Amino acid sequence: MTSVEQVVDFSKRDHDRYLTEFKEYLSIPSISTLSEHKPDIQRCAEWIAKQLTGMGFKNVELLPTAGHPVVYGEWLNAPGKPTLVVYGHYDIQPVDPLNEWVSPPFQPTVRGEYIYARGASDMKGQGHAVLKGLEAWLRSGGLPVNVKMFFEGEEEIGSRNLEPFVEKYKSKLKCDFVLNCDSSILKPDVPALVYGLRGIAYFELHVYGAKADLHSGLFGGAVHNPAQVLCELITGMHDPNGHITLPNFYDKVRVLSNEERAELARVPISDDDWREMAGTKLLYGEKGFTSLERVGARPTLEVNGLLSGFTGEGSKTVLPAKAMAKISMRLIPEQDDGAVEDQLKEYLRKNAPPTVTWEVKNLTSDPAVLVDRNTPAMRAAASALQATFGVKPFFLLSGGSVPVVSMMKNRLGVDSVLLGFGLPDDNIHAPNEKQHLPTYYRGIETYIRFFDFVSQKSMPH
Amino acid sequence: MTSVEQVVDFSKRDHDRYLTEFKEYLSIPSISTLSEHKPDIQRCAEWIAKQLTGMGFKNVELLPTAGHPVVYGEWLNAPGKPTLVVYGHYDIQPVDPLNEWVSPPFQPTVRGEYIYARGASDMKGQGHAVLKGLEAWLRSGGLPVNVKMFFEGEEEIGSRNLEPFVEKYKSKLKCDFVLNCDSSILKPDVPALVYGLRGIAYFELHVYGAKADLHSGLFGGAVHNPAQVLCELITGMHDPNGHITLPNFYDKVRVLSNEERAELARVPISDDDWREMAGTKLLYGEKGFTSLERVGARPTLEVNGLLSGFTGEGSKTVLPAKAMAKISMRLIPEQDDGAVEDQLKEYLRKNAPPTVTWEVKNLTSDPAVLVDRNTPAMRAAASALQATFGVKPFFLLSGGSVPVVSMMKNRLGVDSVLLGFGLPDDNIHAPNEKQHLPTYYRGIETYIRFFDFVSQKSMPH
Repeated sequence: MTSVEQVVDFSKRDHDRYLTEFKEYLSIPSISTLSEHKPDIQRCAEWIAKQLTGMGFKNVELLPTAGHPVVYGEWLNAPGKPTLVVYGHYDIQPVDPLNEWVSPPFQPTVRGEYIYARGASDMKGQGHAVLKGLEAWLRSGGLPVNVKMFFEGEEEIGSRNLEPFVEKYKSKLKCDFVLNCDSSILKPDVPALVYGLRGIAYFELHVYGAKADLHSGLFGGAVHNPAQVLCELITGMHDPNGHITLPNFYDKVRVLSNEERAELARVPISDDDWREMAGTKLLYGEKGFTSLERVGARPTLEVNGLLSGFTGEGSKTVLPAKAMAKISMRLIPEQDDGAVEDQLKEYLRKNAPPTVTWEVKNLTSDPAVLVDRNTPAMRAAASALQATFGVKPFFLLSGGSVPVVSMMKNRLGVDSVLLGFGLPDDNIHAPNEKQHLPTYYRGIETYIRFFDFVSQKSMPH
Repeated sequence: MTSVEQVVDFSKRDHDRYLTEFKEYLSIPSISTLSEHKPDIQRCAEWIAKQLTGMGFKNVELLPTAGHPVVYGEWLNAPGKPTLVVYGHYDIQPVDPLNEWVSPPFQPTVRGEYIYARGASDMKGQGHAVLKGLEAWLRSGGLPVNVKMFFEGEEEIGSRNLEPFVEKYKSKLKCDFVLNCDSSILKPDVPALVYGLRGIAYFELHVYGAKADLHSGLFGGAVHNPAQVLCELITGMHDPNGHITLPNFYDKVRVLSNEERAELARVPISDDDWREMAGTKLLYGEKGFTSLERVGARPTLEVNGLLSGFTGEGSKTVLPAKAMAKISMRLIPEQDDGAVEDQLKEYLRKNAPPTVTWEVKNLTSDPAVLVDRNTPAMRAAASALQATFGVKPFFLLSGGSVPVVSMMKNRLGVDSVLLGFGLPDDNIHAPNEKQHLPTYYRGIETYIRFFDFVSQKSMPH
């Protein structure tokens, strides 16, 4: 029987091949939100299926959903050992603004220690690392655990068809726990394990004024400008202390324990680090909380997009007929993602002037989640990180949202371990997204060790 | 010698030909603000030059400016009679949002009493009507006055190269007054003469936050969102009564006399009319003023466009790095269009938070103007309108801005008569721009009579 360190050593010889394949994976523009990329989504799913088959996975197939397909495959030849679902997503975010990319988003380019491409960090990097971790075991004779691969294609659009899918394939997906690779660590030398994720509720707010755009000279002064109204409504959604004003918004927000606050305060990310990662001259946020608390333990309301009137070159003197904002809230347990829509509408009913009409479209929503820090799987993840990075990982609350974690808990009754290797300054969802290559290779090692630690633990069945 | 009414009768036989030629003029996409339309601008200028030459104008030429050319031509065979410059512009506004046009903007289409096309009202309609009015006299033996044609190609971009041009061709443009055709009446049966125009100052306001777009989950709560800041800054530019808060903004705004207010109050446009023209359910504006006063006699600050972050299909969870608003002010005598930029910057210095940086770009600016209601030319215009429409015209303050009027006063020392035939609900600068065809034909008649009335008046030399 091959030892885990032999598998790790074995994998180290393959870094060049890993990088070549990683680039191939990154070059597929699998953008889930844009319908013109549907063929690329299909191609990307088939690419992963081919990888799984090549590695020795069985029953590899693309399972249809109401949207983009799920890639499934299984390796169940470790009798008596735990069974885990390895979750990931192969879809990625759009690339605009395209002109701000230094190298084209689908021509993966290595500069220094980084590889630049859309999806490099979120999450083709983690996805590919776990594939290579599994492959290293399989090339060494077999996996020490049972694995069901489950890569979806709609994470970046809120996993909107996943819940009925998971319900339908409940027995196929039966497992002891989920390894969710869509996660990150703090710094290249500071590993971390996420035990809490914010939820999200994402809306489009449309404000309508006149039936058509008007001339700002001939009508300006006599009618209400919906772009102005939209700005006023958005302004009113926060008070001067950065608190959100939607009625009852904070009612169910979980308050951090003193112990948790103290633990978070030990995390070695200074305000200087935050400033540098964000690329901003000053930090800003809700009064009374540290940056880590603001991002992990407090809800937010952000404007994700604004559009109204004339935005091209030059000076068109239009008084717009309408204005639109994309607005999303990050949620904290036990906030109800459904209730937020009512709170937003209640705010608008109270504050929108009678001169305009408005409409709210709910694009996606998902509740926040907390996972148990003391399951055997969580301890296996902590051990694997410590063995690879040489230091104990920090336990963290993340600001992002991974809808599938709560879904797996609710539908399959299992916890998730969030173990991934993004870094906070990877420019995910932004131009020049990148993956730190030394961290990607360490990710592969960590996954190799994780499967070994898991096989040594007794799992609750 | 042909009488004026014979010329009018003669012109009435040509309506079909007028419409055919008008459609040809409208089909040229002479959008001045978009550089890809430069060849169309040239083609449009040449089209007018060809018309002028065909009618018998002499010295017809395209005079270069630093931007798009001016079309010039003269007919100076009425010795002892007044000389007028006929001003117009052949450039037009962009057409977006294109998908809201019922028929394509450059395929002029007649539906009911209207012709639909970009520029139909602003101002190819008036421009073509005056050409046909001149042509009717020339086909009847000659004009009763001396005319210098002067059609520019940059009115929709603030006539930004016109001032040095007018200065250079001062002697060529020498005249008794200017007939400016870029104007409108109130309703098809309610003629009007504009004696005041608002000025304009048009800016782009850019707010910059982080150096790149961020993930709204991983950073949301810890950095200031520039879209949020932009909304707050815009909100603060008005107080709850609709007054503009820029420092010293109202200092030089002319106060209406009681006589003027009484005269404006007699204008037969009700609030219902305004609502219908604007296509809005409720009117809105600065407290203490009527709609006509709000539009004609009060300055405004309008958001002409908003752009930030992700505005496409779906839900991209981006925390934008920057946000932009197009903001323009309509000005009232004696507001200084240059001072407004300082007032805006002063406001931003006082109100922008230290978490962002901002930048103001001045796209165009021009002061407001008032013209004398009692010049012989103004009286000739009133008489021509009364003879054609059967009722006396109302004297009006218009909300729009026509930079060339103040320029002609300052550079050539002459007044302008604003005589044009747009209607307030023509959708200018918006989708489905239209011209009311019976009004267009009446416009031709009015111009024919106007030249006759002018030739009967003694002009100051």
